[in-house]
Amino acid sequence: MSKKVLVTGFDPFGGEPVNPAYEAVKLLPDEIAGASVVKLEIPTVFTRSAKVVEEAIERERPDVVLCVGQAGGRSAITVEKVAINLAEARIPDNDGEQPFDTPLREDGDTAYFASLPVKAMVANMNEHGIPAFMSYTAGTYVCNSIMYNVLYLIDRRFPGVRGGFIHVPYAVEQGVGKPNGTPVMEVATMARGLEYAIEAAVSADEDAAVIMGETH
Amino acid sequence: MSKKVLVTGFDPFGGEPVNPAYEAVKLLPDEIAGASVVKLEIPTVFTRSAKVVEEAIERERPDVVLCVGQAGGRSAITVEKVAINLAEARIPDNDGEQPFDTPLREDGDTAYFASLPVKAMVANMNEHGIPAFMSYTAGTYVCNSIMYNVLYLIDRRFPGVRGGFIHVPYAVEQGVGKPNGTPVMEVATMARGLEYAIEAAVSADEDAAVIMGETH
Amino acid sequence: MSKKVLVTGFDPFGGEPVNPAYEAVKLLPDEIAGASVVKLEIPTVFTRSAKVVEEAIERERPDVVLCVGQAGGRSAITVEKVAINLAEARIPDNDGEQPFDTPLREDGDTAYFASLPVKAMVANMNEHGIPAFMSYTAGTYVCNSIMYNVLYLIDRRFPGVRGGFIHVPYAVEQGVGKPNGTPVMEVATMARGLEYAIEAAVSADEDAAVIMGETH
Amino acid sequence: MSKKVLVTGFDPFGGEPVNPAYEAVKLLPDEIAGASVVKLEIPTVFTRSAKVVEEAIERERPDVVLCVGQAGGRSAITVEKVAINLAEARIPDNDGEQPFDTPLREDGDTAYFASLPVKAMVANMNEHGIPAFMSYTAGTYVCNSIMYNVLYLIDRRFPGVRGGFIHVPYAVEQGVGKPNGTPVMEVATMARGLEYAIEAAVSADEDAAVIMGETH
Repeated sequence: MSKKVLVTGFDPFGGEPVNPAYEAVKLLPDEIAGASVVKLEIPTVFTRSAKVVEEAIERERPDVVLCVGQAGGRSAITVEKVAINLAEARIPDNDGEQPFDTPLREDGDTAYFASLPVKAMVANMNEHGIPAFMSYTAGTYVCNSIMYNVLYLIDRRFPGVRGGFIHVPYAVEQGVGKPNGTPVMEVATMARGLEYAIEAAVSADEDAAVIMGETH
Repeated sequence: MSKKVLVTGFDPFGGEPVNPAYEAVKLLPDEIAGASVVKLEIPTVFTRSAKVVEEAIERERPDVVLCVGQAGGRSAITVEKVAINLAEARIPDNDGEQPFDTPLREDGDTAYFASLPVKAMVANMNEHGIPAFMSYTAGTYVCNSIMYNVLYLIDRRFPGVRGGFIHVPYAVEQGVGKPNGTPVMEVATMARGLEYAIEAAVSADEDAAVIMGETH
Repeated sequence: MSKKVLVTGFDPFGGEPVNPAYEAVKLLPDEIAGASVVKLEIPTVFTRSAKVVEEAIERERPDVVLCVGQAGGRSAITVEKVAINLAEARIPDNDGEQPFDTPLREDGDTAYFASLPVKAMVANMNEHGIPAFMSYTAGTYVCNSIMYNVLYLIDRRFPGVRGGFIHVPYAVEQGVGKPNGTPVMEVATMARGLEYAIEAAVSADEDAAVIMGETH
Repeated sequence: MSKKVLVTGFDPFGGEPVNPAYEAVKLLPDEIAGASVVKLEIPTVFTRSAKVVEEAIERERPDVVLCVGQAGGRSAITVEKVAINLAEARIPDNDGEQPFDTPLREDGDTAYFASLPVKAMVANMNEHGIPAFMSYTAGTYVCNSIMYNVLYLIDRRFPGVRGGFIHVPYAVEQGVGKPNGTPVMEVATMARGLEYAIEAAVSADEDAAVIMGETH
């Protein structure tokens, strides 16, 4: 039986007219490496996004859940390694929530590692000419929140599902009016990158033996 | 009678397998805003590039000469304001020349300003969703050299021709293996940007009254 | 009875002749805000650094443990929020160890949050004119390792002790020969920053109610 | 007879409470490498700054004129190679002037190169542990204006005088409240750098044979 991948993308926030995350997700084919792809736009809202994804996992019973969000200012597609149990919002979300130094789940672990083959995903994008890096922080806003919630829900309710998160840069048109030096990426390039990441996510049984990491 | 635009792009240098400059030029249509477009690949060589462009101006008698080169590390398309009478090469050019603290033309001015409507070109790219900025330095390598030589030749031999230079970022695939944070741009996006820049260059009689500049 | 603060700094690594971390620690006064300051140079080694700090905690019985390391490329002093149970070394440490996708402690949590008043520390530095930010990743090298180990040891063996980590930029002289754009900071400025951070760490009972966080 | 160096620094502008340029100049010793040092604070005003410096050159009859200004966002001390005949102000100067696409001198050259041994100045700073680079753009604001005016005046009225310009980064305290990643430098470090730059400026008969330049 073929695998199923649930891929989510956030709606626009922070005054930006579009969110390249879901724009890129929309461009994905319906099948990648033999796995069927289910696409879902989710609200940039701490509380509701988690509920919407939980319901989708119940409904779709995917093998893989990959959430996609925007990290404006990054130059490459980044695959997140870890989500932390912290909500700290510089700006209100789309429902006006602005949590402050608060755990996302009172009974959750301090952090969860992505359960996808993150290095293989990064490596497969790079091998196909798409700049990609591992990231060790998904921030403290709705992106980290949905990644944390997915991994928490997998841990509690959906054993065997593999989950993770990918950040995409600003889209090209978002770069206009921003300071010189702000990196951008075509939405079509993001979509190509996501496709290679998903290909690795559904194909790799073990993660790639590549050294990544940040030397501080 | 319709206008003619000569657009040049450099061949690869510095160990890069492609030069997105000419890759982007190749994608341009043969007519922009009623002007015919002549495309020319030129060598990344101080001496020969100037000769090749001089011969092309003699042959084609263009109204506008726009040279395009790569400025790896920049995030946006940049329209150069000024070329200086200095050759200072960190790396040898493709003929092995490595000039050092040398004037490009013994009898040339210290600098020439671009004679294209540079602000209108930047503004037209931005209005069409392509990040673009004015730049006040074209460096000291072959890009500055060809811009300087074109403006010198216009001053001496080809009055009435308008000349200028545009820098494009790294192409997407050039970002793989470079440090995290290195901005990239799709070659197709560069080509769209160049098309809007040329549209402004052949349409505007006067430059746009927009404040740009760098505050130091 | 007055408080005691154990402050550690790493020795040089990665080919750098000095490590500004311990250079800055050495400049600290012996007393800050009524607390005595014990300074300790520790090896840039995954395994041994943890042992050296564990022995120092046993010996000194400090109220606060603050470890300091270098994050070359950052522009400001950064107070780390979280340490993760992961060792991933791009370069060998000073004993030649190069762990790869390995947990730091088999029986440890996925992550620990710093137990110091991190926001108050950032705020106190900023109020005294020292650029400082919260950081949500301490990397995957020896800095994250010592922060993780200290918080693990506090959790298991030293209840009531508060622990955390601070990253400092390159020192000024380390900037020579590095790419243009590399931020640097005087070691004396780092020491002033550390003093204000420690002042907040030993004075604040609760953390500052300031919104920080990263919006992704 | 010993040499005389006139060193100018701008007063604060753009809403910043201090201008590290003159703060650093004030810290210079009264004699460097046997040359006497005359320090002058000048207004951040297009028109008046040129008059004030012209009067000071008439009065002091210096051998060397070095103007110092702030380039917020740069990480290192930069020695400018070239000044251009262009005023383009994003923000009004301290007299409310905001010139726009205007030549600084109707009868001036398009540009002037610094007549100081700029490479020797960069090299001497680097040799003494101060990050420094050549720059090929002094912007289009009051810094470029004073550099251009000094070189114009030397060309017309003060043959034999050597002139140039140095940009310094934000001071440390200016970094507070600015985006993470903004480089800063201690004013005392700037002053040390300026001292080494001036030492080279008054000592070197010829410029250093070091390859610098920007490869675009």
